[in-house]
Amino acid sequence: MTDAFAQIAALNARYARCIDDGALAEWPDFFCERCLYKVTTAQNYNDGLEAGLIYADSRAMLVDRVSALGEANIYERHAYRHILGAPFILAQDDAGTRAETSFLVVRIMRDGTSDVFASGRYVDVVRLDGDALKLAERIVVCDSSRIDTLLALPL
Amino acid sequence: MTDAFAQIAALNARYARCIDDGALAEWPDFFCERCLYKVTTAQNYNDGLEAGLIYADSRAMLVDRVSALGEANIYERHAYRHILGAPFILAQDDAGTRAETSFLVVRIMRDGTSDVFASGRYVDVVRLDGDALKLAERIVVCDSSRIDTLLALPL
Amino acid sequence: MTDAFAQIAALNARYARCIDDGALAEWPDFFCERCLYKVTTAQNYNDGLEAGLIYADSRAMLVDRVSALGEANIYERHAYRHILGAPFILAQDDAGTRAETSFLVVRIMRDGTSDVFASGRYVDVVRLDGDALKLAERIVVCDSSRIDTLLALPL
Repeated sequence: MTDAFAQIAALNARYARCIDDGALAEWPDFFCERCLYKVTTAQNYNDGLEAGLIYADSRAMLVDRVSALGEANIYERHAYRHILGAPFILAQDDAGTRAETSFLVVRIMRDGTSDVFASGRYVDVVRLDGDALKLAERIVVCDSSRIDTLLALPL
Repeated sequence: MTDAFAQIAALNARYARCIDDGALAEWPDFFCERCLYKVTTAQNYNDGLEAGLIYADSRAMLVDRVSALGEANIYERHAYRHILGAPFILAQDDAGTRAETSFLVVRIMRDGTSDVFASGRYVDVVRLDGDALKLAERIVVCDSSRIDTLLALPL
Repeated sequence: MTDAFAQIAALNARYARCIDDGALAEWPDFFCERCLYKVTTAQNYNDGLEAGLIYADSRAMLVDRVSALGEANIYERHAYRHILGAPFILAQDDAGTRAETSFLVVRIMRDGTSDVFASGRYVDVVRLDGDALKLAERIVVCDSSRIDTLLALPL
């Protein structure tokens, strides 16, 4: 269990760094080619509602999404900082490792002030894809029901 | 040391998840039958004052406390998100492992906004109880001296 | 990799605890005798500007800095709480281990309220100095461009 713990913690640290550095073109590489990436709210998730604010079921869709965001714009907006908790390993089987990780995203405004932008948990299935550990599923369950649907950055 | 580090980090991740998920009936199981759970302030802790805002010295008292909170109410209030740092291992001996872990709790209001609700550190004694690692002591030392004594959730 | 990961996570937890406990006299001991400690902004760092808000290239300079802060004052000001992410290991070679770690610092005001004081990342070179793992370099890259240059505590 310790190995999976350290490996997923390292994967998460790299994932957060990619986003906070604005290296969005590299972000889809964290996912398997066929994957599930969804951003939803705790209320919808607990009620079993499938619909998410953002939904993608392939790496190609994530590439499209990143292109659409337009990196030029991002640098004129805010900066973000992800702070992640330690992963909690739920199960390990042939499909991969199921884990949950709490996250907090701080937004740094252009005027220098900061606030809590989002919090929640990643509900993940992680597995080896070739030699690399990748996300087969990442469901981003946001605590707040008011998430900006024009999210400038992935969560 | 690495083993204790990973095991306590995993215990803490599970503890935080239990509270943030609202699974409060399971929360007392993180503690030994005879235990110490106390919520206090940094000022009182540094001054050596024994009194805490919340005090329990058995798992049975924690069960009572959870019952008193009334789960129904909690779901009508706010959501909380714990973000924990890595545990710092202070000592390992026959009594167990002494460790400290920084925590931050974000509160998500009904209107969707979030703020920093509490921060501080857990001062813990962790030990094997049967085959499970449990908390023999968890002293929650809050940074702020203004802690809501009607805490709807454990820290 | 797992060893470096756990060791640097433990070093960081100890570092944060030292500062948050106000044990500033011990803070320079986290660094090698010849070291680099710099606090700068993401904008300056990305633009390759060498100047930092705070700059020290020896442990002796850090000792001076801590003396100048005047511990007496600190206790009359605010409390701080560092929450650190997991370290991301960039490279390991003869010079040591290069790693980055996200940080968030919460400030607790005298009136009991808390806010996000600073966020950013540590860009580190860590190496063995005798038997202890120490910081050969710690560049504190703050997300915000408005950092209080009269910082009462190290970051």
